[in-house]
Amino acid sequence: LLYAEDMPVDRRFDLGTYTVSADEIKAFATLWDPLPMHVDEEAAAATPFGGLIASGVHTIAIANRLAAEAVISQTALLAGRGGREMRLLKPVRPDTRLTGSLQILENELRDNGRGYISWRIELADDAGDTVYSIIIDCIVHRRPAA
Amino acid sequence: LLYAEDMPVDRRFDLGTYTVSADEIKAFATLWDPLPMHVDEEAAAATPFGGLIASGVHTIAIANRLAAEAVISQTALLAGRGGREMRLLKPVRPDTRLTGSLQILENELRDNGRGYISWRIELADDAGDTVYSIIIDCIVHRRPAA
Repeated sequence: LLYAEDMPVDRRFDLGTYTVSADEIKAFATLWDPLPMHVDEEAAAATPFGGLIASGVHTIAIANRLAAEAVISQTALLAGRGGREMRLLKPVRPDTRLTGSLQILENELRDNGRGYISWRIELADDAGDTVYSIIIDCIVHRRPAA
Repeated sequence: LLYAEDMPVDRRFDLGTYTVSADEIKAFATLWDPLPMHVDEEAAAATPFGGLIASGVHTIAIANRLAAEAVISQTALLAGRGGREMRLLKPVRPDTRLTGSLQILENELRDNGRGYISWRIELADDAGDTVYSIIIDCIVHRRPAA
């Protein structure tokens, strides 16, 4: 289990990859972001994006899934507090393979047994361009005394 | 259709309500945030939350769905740019009825035919407490010349 002490500033975790299909883009957005650019290929083709793109919420979810599987499920997490500086830098198109990373930005160990930790999660596309970035603020338990 | 000119600062839109069930909390989190506090009632009972709570990503998705249906689908949206100051203020528990609102915070009309608009989306619970808040930055088309 990863405790707050195991997350020093600048430590970086690879989160693996996720490839998103057109069908998944449309199914996700039908529920959570039913706009033409996300659910209708013909209508999407007429937008400035020139075709279907994933909902920003879908992108957030993909990044969170990768982070949960690779890091957060192994972390003594008490709670998430929120997020900031969320950027949708480049449209996510069908069949893009997204590669995730998580980097520790801030870590304040407090005497109450908790670490107040901020990390940046990023997704990059096949070209290596960052398509999504967010900073998450959360509380992680400190390592219990032996 | 709502153009940038129709979104003056302080204009407020009601987004309606959404009630989230325990089954939906678990199903969503199984895909996108598979942590015990979101997918396993017994494990959740042993956390400081004392029971199942919705994933933050699920809360984001619910707010986005309400905003998409009530406002964004009626808006001449060009693109979302990102989000900031996302706060998970209070856990969202099963069968909570969430009520959404969207308020315009900033609106910069530019000569390129676009409005650079920021709005705050909030969800409140049955007690009237704000459980979630985010500021979204986006680009909305200006009203075409007659």
